[in-house]
Amino acid sequence: MRPSKRAPDELRPVTLERGVSRYAEGSCLVSFGNTRVLCTASLEERGPGWLRGSGKGWVTAEYSMLPRATHERTRREVTSGKPSGRTQEIQRLIGRSLRAVVDLQAIGERQIVLDCDVIQADGGTRTASVTGAWVALHECFTWMQSRSIISVNPLRDHVAAVSCGIHAGTPVLDLDYAEDSGAETDANFVITGKGGLVEVQGTAEGKPFSEAELMALLALAKGGIATLVDLQKAAVAPR
Amino acid sequence: MRPSKRAPDELRPVTLERGVSRYAEGSCLVSFGNTRVLCTASLEERGPGWLRGSGKGWVTAEYSMLPRATHERTRREVTSGKPSGRTQEIQRLIGRSLRAVVDLQAIGERQIVLDCDVIQADGGTRTASVTGAWVALHECFTWMQSRSIISVNPLRDHVAAVSCGIHAGTPVLDLDYAEDSGAETDANFVITGKGGLVEVQGTAEGKPFSEAELMALLALAKGGIATLVDLQKAAVAPR
Amino acid sequence: MRPSKRAPDELRPVTLERGVSRYAEGSCLVSFGNTRVLCTASLEERGPGWLRGSGKGWVTAEYSMLPRATHERTRREVTSGKPSGRTQEIQRLIGRSLRAVVDLQAIGERQIVLDCDVIQADGGTRTASVTGAWVALHECFTWMQSRSIISVNPLRDHVAAVSCGIHAGTPVLDLDYAEDSGAETDANFVITGKGGLVEVQGTAEGKPFSEAELMALLALAKGGIATLVDLQKAAVAPR
Amino acid sequence: MRPSKRAPDELRPVTLERGVSRYAEGSCLVSFGNTRVLCTASLEERGPGWLRGSGKGWVTAEYSMLPRATHERTRREVTSGKPSGRTQEIQRLIGRSLRAVVDLQAIGERQIVLDCDVIQADGGTRTASVTGAWVALHECFTWMQSRSIISVNPLRDHVAAVSCGIHAGTPVLDLDYAEDSGAETDANFVITGKGGLVEVQGTAEGKPFSEAELMALLALAKGGIATLVDLQKAAVAPR
Amino acid sequence: MRPSKRAPDELRPVTLERGVSRYAEGSCLVSFGNTRVLCTASLEERGPGWLRGSGKGWVTAEYSMLPRATHERTRREVTSGKPSGRTQEIQRLIGRSLRAVVDLQAIGERQIVLDCDVIQADGGTRTASVTGAWVALHECFTWMQSRSIISVNPLRDHVAAVSCGIHAGTPVLDLDYAEDSGAETDANFVITGKGGLVEVQGTAEGKPFSEAELMALLALAKGGIATLVDLQKAAVAPR
Amino acid sequence: MRPSKRAPDELRPVTLERGVSRYAEGSCLVSFGNTRVLCTASLEERGPGWLRGSGKGWVTAEYSMLPRATHERTRREVTSGKPSGRTQEIQRLIGRSLRAVVDLQAIGERQIVLDCDVIQADGGTRTASVTGAWVALHECFTWMQSRSIISVNPLRDHVAAVSCGIHAGTPVLDLDYAEDSGAETDANFVITGKGGLVEVQGTAEGKPFSEAELMALLALAKGGIATLVDLQKAAVAPR
Repeated sequence: MRPSKRAPDELRPVTLERGVSRYAEGSCLVSFGNTRVLCTASLEERGPGWLRGSGKGWVTAEYSMLPRATHERTRREVTSGKPSGRTQEIQRLIGRSLRAVVDLQAIGERQIVLDCDVIQADGGTRTASVTGAWVALHECFTWMQSRSIISVNPLRDHVAAVSCGIHAGTPVLDLDYAEDSGAETDANFVITGKGGLVEVQGTAEGKPFSEAELMALLALAKGGIATLVDLQKAAVAPR
Repeated sequence: MRPSKRAPDELRPVTLERGVSRYAEGSCLVSFGNTRVLCTASLEERGPGWLRGSGKGWVTAEYSMLPRATHERTRREVTSGKPSGRTQEIQRLIGRSLRAVVDLQAIGERQIVLDCDVIQADGGTRTASVTGAWVALHECFTWMQSRSIISVNPLRDHVAAVSCGIHAGTPVLDLDYAEDSGAETDANFVITGKGGLVEVQGTAEGKPFSEAELMALLALAKGGIATLVDLQKAAVAPR
Repeated sequence: MRPSKRAPDELRPVTLERGVSRYAEGSCLVSFGNTRVLCTASLEERGPGWLRGSGKGWVTAEYSMLPRATHERTRREVTSGKPSGRTQEIQRLIGRSLRAVVDLQAIGERQIVLDCDVIQADGGTRTASVTGAWVALHECFTWMQSRSIISVNPLRDHVAAVSCGIHAGTPVLDLDYAEDSGAETDANFVITGKGGLVEVQGTAEGKPFSEAELMALLALAKGGIATLVDLQKAAVAPR
Repeated sequence: MRPSKRAPDELRPVTLERGVSRYAEGSCLVSFGNTRVLCTASLEERGPGWLRGSGKGWVTAEYSMLPRATHERTRREVTSGKPSGRTQEIQRLIGRSLRAVVDLQAIGERQIVLDCDVIQADGGTRTASVTGAWVALHECFTWMQSRSIISVNPLRDHVAAVSCGIHAGTPVLDLDYAEDSGAETDANFVITGKGGLVEVQGTAEGKPFSEAELMALLALAKGGIATLVDLQKAAVAPR
Repeated sequence: MRPSKRAPDELRPVTLERGVSRYAEGSCLVSFGNTRVLCTASLEERGPGWLRGSGKGWVTAEYSMLPRATHERTRREVTSGKPSGRTQEIQRLIGRSLRAVVDLQAIGERQIVLDCDVIQADGGTRTASVTGAWVALHECFTWMQSRSIISVNPLRDHVAAVSCGIHAGTPVLDLDYAEDSGAETDANFVITGKGGLVEVQGTAEGKPFSEAELMALLALAKGGIATLVDLQKAAVAPR
Repeated sequence: MRPSKRAPDELRPVTLERGVSRYAEGSCLVSFGNTRVLCTASLEERGPGWLRGSGKGWVTAEYSMLPRATHERTRREVTSGKPSGRTQEIQRLIGRSLRAVVDLQAIGERQIVLDCDVIQADGGTRTASVTGAWVALHECFTWMQSRSIISVNPLRDHVAAVSCGIHAGTPVLDLDYAEDSGAETDANFVITGKGGLVEVQGTAEGKPFSEAELMALLALAKGGIATLVDLQKAAVAPR
């Protein structure tokens, strides 16, 4: 039995609430159980210098946690003078994941910045961020279309993410913090709506895992992500 | 007529919602109109080194804005390597204001960190932070009492804050962003429940102001803060 | 009786010596008793980027203390990698105060940097800085006029500053370090030659202060600043 | 045909030369074709503070590139004030990979620092680093045993790493720089001598990859790593 | 003829005024012509950690220039986040020079910090700093003796410094800024009262110099330093 | 007898191996006994901004040590956020030394960066760097000539460097680490092929040195550098 009492292939309750920010061009408050991340998409007419003349746009991400998102207060990174390695690793993952389903040509020489700010952290903040950022980005592109900034929606597919792990010998889906701390293997999967793999990251904590275990985790992830994609569809449906 | 259509002495709709964080010892989501700040109070058993042996505790504050709290996205301070002068000025103000009503002796050699994170910014974020931080701090002290960490509540009084300004020649209460941008004089007041002044900060933007104008702003602030203190009382009332 | 034996409304001996720097366009060594600040005004033909095309100039300030200006040696800020919050707060105050009496249009797209370096610190370094910086700025504008860089003097009025406080229950003018350490309330006032208020900053140290006390401090400040303005006039008189 | 003319499952010429540093407790100069990394293992009797009292040791890694390891000179990270996100991601990967095969208990409260300095970079520097660091670590543990600092060798298994990718539709082993730049999918595998998976990191560059492709890459990696482990065995054999 | 009209072996007017700081244990305002440096000596009962248990003390130096010490305003180093290479080179030189004549044993486990702040810079600021710092240090040791903190004066000799250079083919003593800019070779000498060499630093600017030229510069320096030592003696004579 | 058993005027075995880097325009691996430095010369078509329009080029240097170049592992400077004062002092010395023999006009508005990375450190790393950097620079200029980027070789002369010191009362040439630690006086000399002095830096460690000692050290250095120049000639001879 997993600590959360969930079935091995059971997601936590997931909600995706769009339009939560008054000023951002797109936004989504995503919850995976007690994990809550505020994702905003900001259109910047001026992207980074190297975009100029390329005819292409860019999608990038920044990630941060509020100091008291965690059980014990975490020191703000600003006071240590730089984002930690973990923060940078996560924001590169989010950016790469979203760019995998965006037609960069179709957004012109502009940049969309996806800010993922963790309000409450109970495991899986990076996968919740990817999942919610897709909704914020969709809303941003809709906003741009409604103002004729772009003519077609540059999103080519859905993309969502989920963590899996081996807990007490059993492969389980969507680890919360308590489960993650006790997992022998931890894996994150980013998968598109059509089932294409965008990122597979499996890490042994302690003892190595087998090929069969990797396959079992991947199977769980595919199931979970199909559900997440359905929730994204509902979240962006016209109201 | 002020841009917000409010009467000169009219506050924006203010809400103070406590208990919004699952992990923090105290928390409050405060709204002044479209301005929204998440305040958390974190108990740290180990305060800064200089407390040791003093028999006293400390209350300090940190302040930050989410990048897309604002109309245009603001760059995260972590990427510039240090909190800006404005940020530091605000967090010192919040800390000083709350300490003015706390019996530091009564909390023992512990530290309470008040994190004020601006989710949405429409003017008056520092005054909303002071007002909401009091509620978070109250909840934290109640939590500590319920666990017998302290025996009496170290709060000696309420404290709240509000901004005032002279807009188109008229002294007005609680400026929103549009009003603040156009104000000739900008003043922040931090006042206790008993009406004692904790901070008075008046600044001329452009042309100097007169003693009579300072008095008019102070009168407005006293009225507004009396209302805010009533809202604090309601927010911390047992449920 | 105040520690300094001065009457409640008595300034320390104040001197304003201009022309003390061989290279700066304007300079003033200001003393308030044992507090000594070297103020220089430097003309920079190229202001910050955002000035370009505005037709306006800018006046900004930097503030620093020599390490042994103080009773105990203070660590240089360069070794901590950034100016402290206190330093930034003070330099913003000095810049704002001087800009309040300058016609920015009249100086063209140039910048004047006011450097206020504290040689010796015995309380009131920020108010001494504002008072002395005015003299340095005046000398700089005179220098610019003499070279036909500008045609009219952009200074519209005097501006000076002084601290006040409540010491042992009595409102007193121009606190030295010993008095400041023991004051219950500390207030800084920046006031123009015509008596207009530019900045009012009152802070309770410990217990709140009343409206009547604020008024008493303001009255003291107005008296002190009238004297300081007379000293400025003498300092900039042609020799 | 791949740019390097190699067969899809063919490694570049790999050499592992141990004992190359006069001062380090263990060292290995590893080459994968033109990629050359100097790995040293340094024993530190005092590990990080959090080790104290745990009875366990620690293995950590640092990674850097000489500025002219690359085709175009790369700016030193010291002048940007912090290691880049990429650098931190790589050094975390190296540390985790080696710890997966070390009995931390057996090394006592000490730390081994693995420095991986890239002398020349032609793709696969992180996988070469893991592979060479194992040899340096082995030499360090042998040195410690010969001085009776430890009684048993804390290494429980070999660990090595290799990159794979899909190039022009074909899964290929051990990408050099030219192949890596043109690859559609890029994956790094860290695998033990017994075939256990330690890290699996697959990333789509552009279009997503399928489960079958992931399996093909994993099969290639297992073959390559078996060869690398044989080379490690030869490198650490008594001379 | 040198730009300054001085004879080749002629120092600028040099003054050494001690006791200029109200708070420092020792101080000296040194002028070499228009170059003016404020030197203070601060006794710190707690030296750096590595002193503890050594039975020895330490003398260290810090050097800085006020922004408008120079013809054009110089940016403060605090805003670039670190002391420049030049600043660090100079403060290491000053510290080494003074330590060469101090009996570190005789000062116990304490540290003296010599702060050399350049008020006005017209060439030779580092040599003026060494010369003035000796006077400040002497005053500090006298202060310590008068309070019985130490029993004997730890200064074993005088030490002073001067720059020399080859200007228009002629070796000259004590370069001012204009001469320094045009010199072909620039050399700094630190020499004790007894004539021992502590530092010799000769640098060709453009074309190399000969052994004979080095000797000529050294001869000039010895003459100049004999005069400086006489001035130091006068400066520290009891008043 | 010196610790290294060498005669007082005997260099360590010195080797200069050019062409060791696959990518750099020039390179040299230099050894002075156990000291080993990898020097590369990188041509940058875009030099620093201030070169533009000057018609001149620039030669600059960067210096670093691998962490385990030393007996005890040294912390990477990147983790302290800036190059140390010592590092900056050395890289300025290398740059100045090489520029002394380069016709900057002849290289056009380009920059050559000399990277000197210490692989193993046994004393004299800065002098080995200067000596090896000359070979790397020569190879870079030859490369530029062979591609008709420049028409004449901008090198006007050789330049090499060596350390000397007074060990147990005897002046000795080319100190290794053990000798350097015990030397009373330490001096570095940079001298051209024609015998011109470029840099003379003598420092007393502890007690001052005499003029006669300085002369003796200089004589040793001239002999050593003549040998080093012969080795440079052999190293750059056509193969």
